Amino acid sequence: MTYCCGVLVRDGLVMIADTRTNAGLDNISTFRKLHIFDEPGHHVLALASAGNLSVSQSVVSLLHEGVEDHEAGERQMLRDSKTMFQAAQLVGRAIRQVHTVDAHALEQSNVSFDVSFLLGGQIVGGPLRLFMIYSAGNFIECTTDTPFLQIGEHKYGKPVLDRAVTYDMNISDALKSSLISMDSTMRSNLGVGLPIDVMVLCPDTLEADLNYRIEPGEPYFHDLRERWSAALRAAHSSIPRPPYLKNVRSKADE
Amino acid sequence: MTYCCGVLVRDGLVMIADTRTNAGLDNISTFRKLHIFDEPGHHVLALASAGNLSVSQSVVSLLHEGVEDHEAGERQMLRDSKTMFQAAQLVGRAIRQVHTVDAHALEQSNVSFDVSFLLGGQIVGGPLRLFMIYSAGNFIECTTDTPFLQIGEHKYGKPVLDRAVTYDMNISDALKSSLISMDSTMRSNLGVGLPIDVMVLCPDTLEADLNYRIEPGEPYFHDLRERWSAALRAAHSSIPRPPYLKNVRSKADE
Repeated sequence: MTYCCGVLVRDGLVMIADTRTNAGLDNISTFRKLHIFDEPGHHVLALASAGNLSVSQSVVSLLHEGVEDHEAGERQMLRDSKTMFQAAQLVGRAIRQVHTVDAHALEQSNVSFDVSFLLGGQIVGGPLRLFMIYSAGNFIECTTDTPFLQIGEHKYGKPVLDRAVTYDMNISDALKSSLISMDSTMRSNLGVGLPIDVMVLCPDTLEADLNYRIEPGEPYFHDLRERWSAALRAAHSSIPRPPYLKNVRSKADE
Repeated sequence: MTYCCGVLVRDGLVMIADTRTNAGLDNISTFRKLHIFDEPGHHVLALASAGNLSVSQSVVSLLHEGVEDHEAGERQMLRDSKTMFQAAQLVGRAIRQVHTVDAHALEQSNVSFDVSFLLGGQIVGGPLRLFMIYSAGNFIECTTDTPFLQIGEHKYGKPVLDRAVTYDMNISDALKSSLISMDSTMRSNLGVGLPIDVMVLCPDTLEADLNYRIEPGEPYFHDLRERWSAALRAAHSSIPRPPYLKNVRSKADE
């Protein structure tokens, strides 16, 4: 499994991805899923991937080497995209190219062509944007109404984002929310695990403000996990007991 | 969608189920999914269902009318089960009987034979037990290590159970945890909704200690939802900001 999340607030962009891959529970490995394409001063793009690793890695390789454009008779690389929209289109075309090559053989082996990406970043002259690209190559864009997108194992970490994330929040709080969301996911799904890769990009800096790997035992994240658990237990205790069981004598209370 | 949860602690059993069914988002209805089979002093069984409503209702009808036992040449009803294990077996056989009748035709219409049940309760002479029964008719039993089972849309409501529920907790706290778990699920999935049916059964009472429907606007549950949201926001605020962004000046803070 995988969990990746992008949070786009007025203050900036957070991209976060775990690194665990598995082919069955008995074959677990660590692979980077957050790929940075950057040229400081010109563009910073972060691409997070979920799904079949052979497909997502092929897409990333094509974006580096160039996706063939038969009409123009040339290869287009992600770094040459003029706008974020064109960059998202190119990721979609790379997915379709891999589909053309691999999907039939995968299907013969009962492996589904399953892949999705988050693409966030900024290209000089345009705004900071965030997209989610599906396995068919189509995509949606993050807006201010719901300022986050998720791929992979998204359910466990969604309630905290639904409640905490707003477009007006501080970039540090957006990063904190994404880390809590990752923690909730890691606790409930062993297929999502440390280390975690994080990128933060503020508007118009055109250079990653953070490109960081959180390793097992890293003090802040360890502390965040302990504090969040304790706070949830305290929140649970603070809610009055239901009034429905008036006639029940609890043995646990005796 | 559906969300049902059973919590079995030393102090007793909580069964909780929402009532929303949908055939697409444009066809939403209310159906009871928590079915009680009881004869005070002899047995109390609660059966919660998820999946295809036509399948789950047929299973419930068979359990009332009797599942044919060709070897014994008779029909077996759930209320005649001697032990909770035999009751779980009978639910499994009812599922298989409906499968024999309906699965092929459903498949022809591209509808999957998708159903699952939680069966909890006590039969005189035996202990309080809780089972989860799959669409193939096989089942697992809840144990003290993980004292809850879930069916339907289980992911959103699992983190809070993972953190809060222990076998030694008070029955009122177990009920509170299941309500918070239901709230988290309802917030993130529109396919899960009020009213909510709840049953509580303490050991050896052999009569439901609570058999209650929480309707929209019910004061305690409304208050629980507000308090839980506020507590989560407070918990989020109480965690220090990540130390990774030292050089970033947040515009949101200016």
